Amino acid sequence: FVSLLSSAIIVYRLPWTWKCSKLLMKFIHAGLNTIAMILAIVSMVAVFEFHNAKNIPNMYSLHSWIGLTAVIFYSLQLLLGFAVFLLPFAPVQLRVVLMPIHVYSGLTIFATVIATALMGITEKLIFSLKSPAYSASPPEANLVNCLGLLLVIFGSLILWMASRPHWKRPPVENAKILRPTAATPEGTEVESTMTNSSNADKSDLKINTEAARKQNIKFDEAGQRSTM
Amino acid sequence: FVSLLSSAIIVYRLPWTWKCSKLLMKFIHAGLNTIAMILAIVSMVAVFEFHNAKNIPNMYSLHSWIGLTAVIFYSLQLLLGFAVFLLPFAPVQLRVVLMPIHVYSGLTIFATVIATALMGITEKLIFSLKSPAYSASPPEANLVNCLGLLLVIFGSLILWMASRPHWKRPPVENAKILRPTAATPEGTEVESTMTNSSNADKSDLKINTEAARKQNIKFDEAGQRSTM
Repeated sequence: FVSLLSSAIIVYRLPWTWKCSKLLMKFIHAGLNTIAMILAIVSMVAVFEFHNAKNIPNMYSLHSWIGLTAVIFYSLQLLLGFAVFLLPFAPVQLRVVLMPIHVYSGLTIFATVIATALMGITEKLIFSLKSPAYSASPPEANLVNCLGLLLVIFGSLILWMASRPHWKRPPVENAKILRPTAATPEGTEVESTMTNSSNADKSDLKINTEAARKQNIKFDEAGQRSTM
Repeated sequence: FVSLLSSAIIVYRLPWTWKCSKLLMKFIHAGLNTIAMILAIVSMVAVFEFHNAKNIPNMYSLHSWIGLTAVIFYSLQLLLGFAVFLLPFAPVQLRVVLMPIHVYSGLTIFATVIATALMGITEKLIFSLKSPAYSASPPEANLVNCLGLLLVIFGSLILWMASRPHWKRPPVENAKILRPTAATPEGTEVESTMTNSSNADKSDLKINTEAARKQNIKFDEAGQRSTM
């Protein structure tokens, strides 16, 4: 489940996918998240049935509260993402406004899901290890602790990948289309504030590319081209 | 502890502090984090003494493993931040390279600390509530669950504040200094790729300011002016 979520998150960050169409990538992103959502629902049903079969009360733990909150927000995220970014009806301005919220929600839900998993692991270790107890550090406990630690490291790496601006899918299409438009004099002054550096040509080129990306990125993120 | 960490994180995001000097804000940021670090060490010592007094093994749980990892990274973060960003010796280029890592590490440590707290709460509720047990949902359990949920909401808000680009401390000083430099023709083309929008004047002005901020931000983030 976490790996599906992760794949869905970093699907735009894989350089070898940058030549694929934006629409295809959006379908993959939406598809992976839909599968993850189905798995989340299936596993929740399994938990409830397990609890009922064993006469364990439902929804009493912090793990369950936060987990359910995460799943609710996740389904909202999925529905909203589908309605706004995949269907071709939402106006560009709405997409531009909602995209940072969509990204933030996605990453926050991901982090919350990891925290929920860690609480679940903690509960399970306490309840399942009886002789020797969890506190006696049997090999099982250490193994599962290691897995928990790896989960945190894995989650951190995914968040690192997802938050690096230069690992963003470059908006080539839009840059090409927008570039030939007329230049206004106002643009000149601010653009070149850093060109007096020692390696002027190189840094200037870099800045221009960066600036172009940053400017176009809003439109590209909104993805208005691919679904229209 | 979490509130100290939060204050330290968002200290640059409070508009009413933008008129204060960068150096003062850095001292506040470093000071709050130092206090938080001291509290973390004091509380860890308290935990070890409590465990020893009650003959509970130390460092057996996932909570303790991840918590200790977070504290180790936090102290590295503090030392590195002090050496690179507060002391005036580090070259600007090093600061520019390390700043995104510093920001990412800080936010990731913050999220990990919250996850650790949630695991700690889960453990404590399981171990302390015996009759009625945690699973019987006594008022205590619900109260503490609510606090845990609030902790997640609080953490999410802090991460939202910390990740909004327009809530960044604007690099006014640098913008003023860098702006009057000569403009090169290469800068013009890309800068104005979006000026053919309907409200050309307004959006152009906004883009210029944005572009200026984004360009200068690297230097401002490195904070080379305030400690030199």
